[in-house]
Amino acid sequence: MKVTIKDIAQQANVSVSLVSLVLNHKPCRLSKETRERIVRIAKENNYIVNQHARSLVTKKSHTLGLVIPDIENIFFSTLCKNIEEYCRKSGYTLMIVNTNDKVEEDFRLIKMLEGKGVDGLFITVSNESFFHKDKMEFFLKSLSVPYVMVDRYYEGLEGYKTFFDNQLGAYLATKHLLAKGHRKIACISGPSNNGYLRLQGFQQAMQEYHIPTDQIHIMEGDFHYQSGYEAAKKVIAQDITGVFIANDMMTLGFLKYMAEQHKLIPEHYSIVSYDNTMAPYTQGQAISAIDQNVKELAVVASQLLIDVMDEKKIAEHEKCLSPQFVDNGSVKKI
Amino acid sequence: MKVTIKDIAQQANVSVSLVSLVLNHKPCRLSKETRERIVRIAKENNYIVNQHARSLVTKKSHTLGLVIPDIENIFFSTLCKNIEEYCRKSGYTLMIVNTNDKVEEDFRLIKMLEGKGVDGLFITVSNESFFHKDKMEFFLKSLSVPYVMVDRYYEGLEGYKTFFDNQLGAYLATKHLLAKGHRKIACISGPSNNGYLRLQGFQQAMQEYHIPTDQIHIMEGDFHYQSGYEAAKKVIAQDITGVFIANDMMTLGFLKYMAEQHKLIPEHYSIVSYDNTMAPYTQGQAISAIDQNVKELAVVASQLLIDVMDEKKIAEHEKCLSPQFVDNGSVKKI
Repeated sequence: MKVTIKDIAQQANVSVSLVSLVLNHKPCRLSKETRERIVRIAKENNYIVNQHARSLVTKKSHTLGLVIPDIENIFFSTLCKNIEEYCRKSGYTLMIVNTNDKVEEDFRLIKMLEGKGVDGLFITVSNESFFHKDKMEFFLKSLSVPYVMVDRYYEGLEGYKTFFDNQLGAYLATKHLLAKGHRKIACISGPSNNGYLRLQGFQQAMQEYHIPTDQIHIMEGDFHYQSGYEAAKKVIAQDITGVFIANDMMTLGFLKYMAEQHKLIPEHYSIVSYDNTMAPYTQGQAISAIDQNVKELAVVASQLLIDVMDEKKIAEHEKCLSPQFVDNGSVKKI
Repeated sequence: MKVTIKDIAQQANVSVSLVSLVLNHKPCRLSKETRERIVRIAKENNYIVNQHARSLVTKKSHTLGLVIPDIENIFFSTLCKNIEEYCRKSGYTLMIVNTNDKVEEDFRLIKMLEGKGVDGLFITVSNESFFHKDKMEFFLKSLSVPYVMVDRYYEGLEGYKTFFDNQLGAYLATKHLLAKGHRKIACISGPSNNGYLRLQGFQQAMQEYHIPTDQIHIMEGDFHYQSGYEAAKKVIAQDITGVFIANDMMTLGFLKYMAEQHKLIPEHYSIVSYDNTMAPYTQGQAISAIDQNVKELAVVASQLLIDVMDEKKIAEHEKCLSPQFVDNGSVKKI
């Protein structure tokens, strides 16, 4: 049987409005003992102030959900922070959940948030979900609340989505190396859809400059530190002058190995990285990189979801953002 | 008027169980058109699968809330990840909210999570809240769900809390410098309660070695990169051989300035940092530091909250974890 605020008031021998004030943490003149008695009785009866019930009346909860694959990754934690900020300023409260990049968690947590009565969802799907694309598309279509896919998306999906042009970024990075005269260029690649698109961009630039296939070196990485360190060993073993590295974490591993081997950037190797988040971490060593404006992504995603919820007319379902090349001088002219 | 699943079924001219299957994303044999019609009608009526209503019957939602001041800070994002992992394995779903280190958001978001029917809360209060301690203590006491304070806590508060011994960490760091013969030692300090306790630990060690007050240099920092960079300028301007830096972000700024001035660690300056998260970021340069085992904090906090919810007998309301000194050779013997 559900306990009501009336039951609590009766047991505590006080008025309903007093119980309401105490449980909603509103200021009221009341002895410490009475206040504590009300709280204790409410707790004993498992009474919870039911905000959700309240929102069933207004039909808006003014809460939004954000589904993120890896909260520890600096790209995603910055994205969370910026989305939270924009939503708060727009009158929405954000609840964040972490899927650990697992597709079963995508399903479970999205359902959970829907059940908690959020008005809308930001979704960055797991990398695993790309192997279950049909099931996930079906699932997303049957959601009862609007959603926006952020950063990762399924090609061809009808829903709203916003993301960076990964192929363009890698193309710009590689083209910079080529324009400075480099021809023996390696790519330290990454996994998943974004990794794949960055590799595409690398190859697009190499083809544009008619680089023979046997001079293209692709070293498979996994976006983590250690794989950059291992790839650096392979770079040194070959006749290479320039390297495009598909994210900053791998670049840090790459730089660590090069420092151990007393190799200098750009004197011995010219490099371009991806993310441009490294400035605080490389003492005195500046690295040219592709910059993705995470704040811009957060603002575009938030405004898109809010517009959809407000049933505004949306010109495009898809917003693709362009990354920028930032020259920090880590490429030598040859 | 609240729309029920029956209303949807009637409008769609299908059975209630079929609507339930579709809206709960269960597999069912059904034409694409019918499925889409059901979803459309549910959406038009603002019908949401009400998990919260369901949980009012079982009285358990198996969801927990985590209130965090700065999701972008690597310490907190790692904490989130580890708490989420432990809770998931224990059958709980975690919802994370970010307060932006503002006390008004502490109040608002904790209330919101309580209203969403969480079974319990992890709370890392804002630094601002230490100026509103009484109000916050009153508020926490009147919560209808159990909570555990994590990392930051109010001295003397009766509730459950777990945190690191900040004073001990700073004491160990400073003692290492002193034991290696350093006497002209600076402290680059940090703000808030944790910053204050680290400064206390620094002074405790200095007093133990009877260092005269006029040889104690305290440079005020704010835990951010730039303040470490600025403090390094002051270190160079004075007769100092050793530095205790109260967190890793400031150490990165410190190292950047030293690299620009061609000063070497530990040849010119011996340093000990706090956090021990820098290994990936310092190419070839290892830094001795106080290590806080964030995973341990997450496990202790999670198990404590679960025990409280399960009404197990708890021996201590307070769990204080000891940080460790990790020697990476950045202190020279003099």
